[in-house]
Amino acid sequence: MPNSFGNLFRITTWGESHGAAIGVVVDGCPPNLPLTVEEIQAELDRRRPGQSDIVTPRKEADAVEILSGLYEGRTTGTPISMLVRNTDQRPAAYDEMVEKFRPSHADYTYQAKFGLRDPRGGGRSSARETIGRVAAGAIAKKILTLAGAVEIRAYLTRVHDIEMPALVKLPTLAEVEASPVRCPDTATAERMITRIKEVRSQGDSVGGVIECRVRGLPVGLGEPVFDRLEADLAKAMLSLPATKGFEVGSGFAGTVLRGSEHNDPFVMRDGRVHTKSNRSGGVQGGISNGEELVFRTAFKPTATILQSQKTVNVKGEETELAARGRHDPCVVPRAVPIVEAMTALVLLDHWMRHSAQNRLFTF
Amino acid sequence: MPNSFGNLFRITTWGESHGAAIGVVVDGCPPNLPLTVEEIQAELDRRRPGQSDIVTPRKEADAVEILSGLYEGRTTGTPISMLVRNTDQRPAAYDEMVEKFRPSHADYTYQAKFGLRDPRGGGRSSARETIGRVAAGAIAKKILTLAGAVEIRAYLTRVHDIEMPALVKLPTLAEVEASPVRCPDTATAERMITRIKEVRSQGDSVGGVIECRVRGLPVGLGEPVFDRLEADLAKAMLSLPATKGFEVGSGFAGTVLRGSEHNDPFVMRDGRVHTKSNRSGGVQGGISNGEELVFRTAFKPTATILQSQKTVNVKGEETELAARGRHDPCVVPRAVPIVEAMTALVLLDHWMRHSAQNRLFTF
Amino acid sequence: MPNSFGNLFRITTWGESHGAAIGVVVDGCPPNLPLTVEEIQAELDRRRPGQSDIVTPRKEADAVEILSGLYEGRTTGTPISMLVRNTDQRPAAYDEMVEKFRPSHADYTYQAKFGLRDPRGGGRSSARETIGRVAAGAIAKKILTLAGAVEIRAYLTRVHDIEMPALVKLPTLAEVEASPVRCPDTATAERMITRIKEVRSQGDSVGGVIECRVRGLPVGLGEPVFDRLEADLAKAMLSLPATKGFEVGSGFAGTVLRGSEHNDPFVMRDGRVHTKSNRSGGVQGGISNGEELVFRTAFKPTATILQSQKTVNVKGEETELAARGRHDPCVVPRAVPIVEAMTALVLLDHWMRHSAQNRLFTF
Amino acid sequence: MPNSFGNLFRITTWGESHGAAIGVVVDGCPPNLPLTVEEIQAELDRRRPGQSDIVTPRKEADAVEILSGLYEGRTTGTPISMLVRNTDQRPAAYDEMVEKFRPSHADYTYQAKFGLRDPRGGGRSSARETIGRVAAGAIAKKILTLAGAVEIRAYLTRVHDIEMPALVKLPTLAEVEASPVRCPDTATAERMITRIKEVRSQGDSVGGVIECRVRGLPVGLGEPVFDRLEADLAKAMLSLPATKGFEVGSGFAGTVLRGSEHNDPFVMRDGRVHTKSNRSGGVQGGISNGEELVFRTAFKPTATILQSQKTVNVKGEETELAARGRHDPCVVPRAVPIVEAMTALVLLDHWMRHSAQNRLFTF
Repeated sequence: MPNSFGNLFRITTWGESHGAAIGVVVDGCPPNLPLTVEEIQAELDRRRPGQSDIVTPRKEADAVEILSGLYEGRTTGTPISMLVRNTDQRPAAYDEMVEKFRPSHADYTYQAKFGLRDPRGGGRSSARETIGRVAAGAIAKKILTLAGAVEIRAYLTRVHDIEMPALVKLPTLAEVEASPVRCPDTATAERMITRIKEVRSQGDSVGGVIECRVRGLPVGLGEPVFDRLEADLAKAMLSLPATKGFEVGSGFAGTVLRGSEHNDPFVMRDGRVHTKSNRSGGVQGGISNGEELVFRTAFKPTATILQSQKTVNVKGEETELAARGRHDPCVVPRAVPIVEAMTALVLLDHWMRHSAQNRLFTF
Repeated sequence: MPNSFGNLFRITTWGESHGAAIGVVVDGCPPNLPLTVEEIQAELDRRRPGQSDIVTPRKEADAVEILSGLYEGRTTGTPISMLVRNTDQRPAAYDEMVEKFRPSHADYTYQAKFGLRDPRGGGRSSARETIGRVAAGAIAKKILTLAGAVEIRAYLTRVHDIEMPALVKLPTLAEVEASPVRCPDTATAERMITRIKEVRSQGDSVGGVIECRVRGLPVGLGEPVFDRLEADLAKAMLSLPATKGFEVGSGFAGTVLRGSEHNDPFVMRDGRVHTKSNRSGGVQGGISNGEELVFRTAFKPTATILQSQKTVNVKGEETELAARGRHDPCVVPRAVPIVEAMTALVLLDHWMRHSAQNRLFTF
Repeated sequence: MPNSFGNLFRITTWGESHGAAIGVVVDGCPPNLPLTVEEIQAELDRRRPGQSDIVTPRKEADAVEILSGLYEGRTTGTPISMLVRNTDQRPAAYDEMVEKFRPSHADYTYQAKFGLRDPRGGGRSSARETIGRVAAGAIAKKILTLAGAVEIRAYLTRVHDIEMPALVKLPTLAEVEASPVRCPDTATAERMITRIKEVRSQGDSVGGVIECRVRGLPVGLGEPVFDRLEADLAKAMLSLPATKGFEVGSGFAGTVLRGSEHNDPFVMRDGRVHTKSNRSGGVQGGISNGEELVFRTAFKPTATILQSQKTVNVKGEETELAARGRHDPCVVPRAVPIVEAMTALVLLDHWMRHSAQNRLFTF
Repeated sequence: MPNSFGNLFRITTWGESHGAAIGVVVDGCPPNLPLTVEEIQAELDRRRPGQSDIVTPRKEADAVEILSGLYEGRTTGTPISMLVRNTDQRPAAYDEMVEKFRPSHADYTYQAKFGLRDPRGGGRSSARETIGRVAAGAIAKKILTLAGAVEIRAYLTRVHDIEMPALVKLPTLAEVEASPVRCPDTATAERMITRIKEVRSQGDSVGGVIECRVRGLPVGLGEPVFDRLEADLAKAMLSLPATKGFEVGSGFAGTVLRGSEHNDPFVMRDGRVHTKSNRSGGVQGGISNGEELVFRTAFKPTATILQSQKTVNVKGEETELAARGRHDPCVVPRAVPIVEAMTALVLLDHWMRHSAQNRLFTF
């Protein structure tokens, strides 16, 4: 259903940008996992507004409360309900949005679909909804780390037209977090920050690209046919606000190679099967092959800009609108922990499915 | 589950490349729809092997049989089971594949995941599986046409590095089908065919890009949050064999624009809300906005090539493999009806969901 | 997934008896429905502890808070999150339960299944979980009433061996609620109350039977084969704590009739098809036929009794246990609104599914 | 969806009584299971028409064909498609049914729901649909046997008002199959057969009760809250044609006991926790407790009788109908393998779910 994601490890998110609270219910979490509020909070802090001077100044502590599913510090196998109260609500800032549809936002489509909408900060279409995803993803991440030393690392490779040089090795979390823009290449990060500040000063916005790599995955995650690993990752990424594209491994660039150039030869290394190159991006026939999983997601420039724009209002009259309210001139840096969270959710769910079907019975 | 797709209009496909048959069960088809075998067959003929001199010469009529769900030429609301017998089986051609993993195919991952695999023609990982999708998609397409004059049109915009000039208007089906390569620009189509024949003569292969546009969609299809229209389309496309990327509207190129350049201003036209530009690609906040739906899918070069390649065998020894068997030097032309089928399945399912939730009750 | 119920109108419940709170997320609620906290609270008050002198004296106001999905008093089509804080927690009363398995409770099976359990008041296995069901059911009920004047009426027909005389006509809500035991026959209700007080004074407990009748259903709800209306109702009822049986229409008694006695002849009445008798219980071939829906659910005697019982502890040693804590000597009266809630959830979900598949397109 | 059942081990059935074929697709079957057509056929032969002189004489070999999912005698983890061709079709025998609704059949409700129906032998509502369930159940049964020596045994305890004496020990399969009526008590079986022949000679029919017991289940199957083991079994049983009731353990009779009489004391036996009595029926809090699983299903008398009955036709005119065609005077004996099949499907699915959530990770 629309507000749930996953099969065996399933999350259901709820809440609006300026409603009472935002939350998530996690169903299917394995029991006996040690879990603290602090672990969840640490991930939420990475997506929190006001974390640096290049993001929205909205003041939200995003303090999470765990309401169920834990007993004496361990998960019990029952649903984990988590909640963040909204505090810095300024609905007045959105008065104009009650009447006018913001260009390239969800105002018009929500109004048309449902016949009404919560206009305060975009209501359910706000990226605040991703709080629930990040909270749930923190649990999935922890399980993946404990179960298999799986390492998920996302980072910006591009802001606007500023592109990071080719990666030499997987950056550490510290290297990514070293800059508020979450690009592990220091020089590029500086240029990105400068560009973001520049467009902000012009009341404008920019987008960019996030790459995510996963190390330590077992061979065998992903299902033939519809629930291919890359298909579920594509859905996960395109379900994030402001995304316009997804590619795995060689991606769109791979279409200009010939088969003889593109194929990844199999080789033996360290006693097991590897591929020499990794244009497959770690997945073959929809199933992880044990190489690094590599995919990229494109984020459009933030739709909210302070410049005046042509639009129409709910009465069908043409008019103009200039945003007020607080916003991110570039959402991409704050999207990094969200990409990681969604990746963790997809991987854990597939891990559980794979094991249930293929590792349970020996005939 | 892995072999099912869709919620209210759900398909389940089954079958292996060289097994007895390939098929699909369609559950949730509305009753009373006039339907003939010929309508299904027409779509299957568009994906059939041997249809032109640039595709695989495997001789399969792909003649479909409808086994249930119809009574006196109309659907009854019960499951529609459809089946295509495999006839041109030459398992001997695949003897070598029993032992050796074909590079950039699913042989190794299937073997590792399941502990065994059907090596005949790739078994379940073969693109013959898409027969079921196309058969089911033919029904979805027909319903969309009858219900809302929805027009789904896919075509090649690129083969290898040969790119079609910018589209002036939506091509007709006849314009697409005019060339075996399914590119509506005649001159480009010729160059694509030449390239495909050239790489085939070298025992090599190429990939390309399919664009799909949909006209006539109502406003309101797609769900907030996880089941966004573009998210489900992304999953549908990445679930196709050989795909490496997906983008909607402005896509990856949109990331180099500023918000002020990228936003689609709302305007009134013909008495209703439209956008002036369509960088959104027909979807905003995950929901169709009534503009043309536009998305692109990247297909890698065919993994099967006749040149000798390095690989390993099931015993973990390094070896070499040169494909025999019949194959497509470029799968993209035959993928056009498959892209359309998956698109129809996604759209119809969302149409039914949208109506069930939002058009049923008036309060 | 285990903690979700329904397809198009789907609820997910969470929370433990003595955790911070109990709640539910409703996904798929149609937009634009006028809804108030008071409407939800009214149903919760019917299942609340302490409502009369024949139920548990645990003091819980069960005051519900709506956290999302509403804007200016109307549903928005987004998830409705509702929460009830637990207030009268006396975990000390459950100290013994940490060590000992209560007979015919879920202590042992939860411990064995999950490897640990929240022992406070039964944790997740407590009937307090049904708060979420009743809150969600209140919404479903309202929609059914507005949409089709559907009337759902549950009531006790038996407590222990005290059975109500055959029903003459469908009782009103007021007639059911007239007695704390929720049996519409006044004399029987008195005898039931006396019996309940008697067994309570002995530290013992009793069970009983709830009958539920639904009037005003359209013909056509329920799906062929697996999701028959009675199959989903059976699942809904058996998913309630303490239930041991379900029957629809003639039920078990119907097995001693011959076909010629059991069949319901079709007749024309008021211009449409009716059945003369109703041994089918309002459902034929899994689909509602427009007659009154009639089914019964059996509830076992409350497992918690104050008498000393033989049991074993978590170390596998035989021991004895006498309950402390507060409990219902007979859960059946408080189960009436829960039965109604689950019935409403099943019916609304089927209504939406039926319409999506069969009322959307006209060919 | 309506024609699918199960989560991790999911079946989708299709086909009509007098259509071309009846079939099932099994998705989620673990790989590497040795499987032969003969094993499936053996179970189908137990539900086959014409197997004895107390069942319908329709001549159907019900010969099953496996079309996919097997390679060299072992399952491959991909969907298993199975098909039975209908051969003894006599649609002419059903001419009258095109116009008239058979009392207590699904003719009227299907017509009303879908706007049309396949009248040949009841179309999709025919019990021939259960062929797919039995074929799939045969696989589930085999896995349960190999994995845990689980033994599922169903048998008749009642036909009409002829009831079997209390069971002393679990009957063997041979004891059940010794009589065509599938009651393990020889004397009772004889009386049942006599009764069935008697009502058949009168053009009438009878129903009965099937009890099912399962031995060898691990502790822990079933999920808290909605997907309780008994809830899923209740749904499975009520999804069978002609069923009117379900009870587990003490069932409806348990409601006349007091808690002190009904509770099952825990005791230690053979080094592990057991219950002294088994009024719980092997399930507590929705989860198997390691005791024998015990439940009963009520089947109404066959709706098809040869006596003339009052009914209405599709034009809404009152009329009369006397069945022709071939039918079972009592469907219960042939329902025994179907009950076992559905039980196996529920148990295996829960086994896989339990393992995926609780046995995969150790923290």
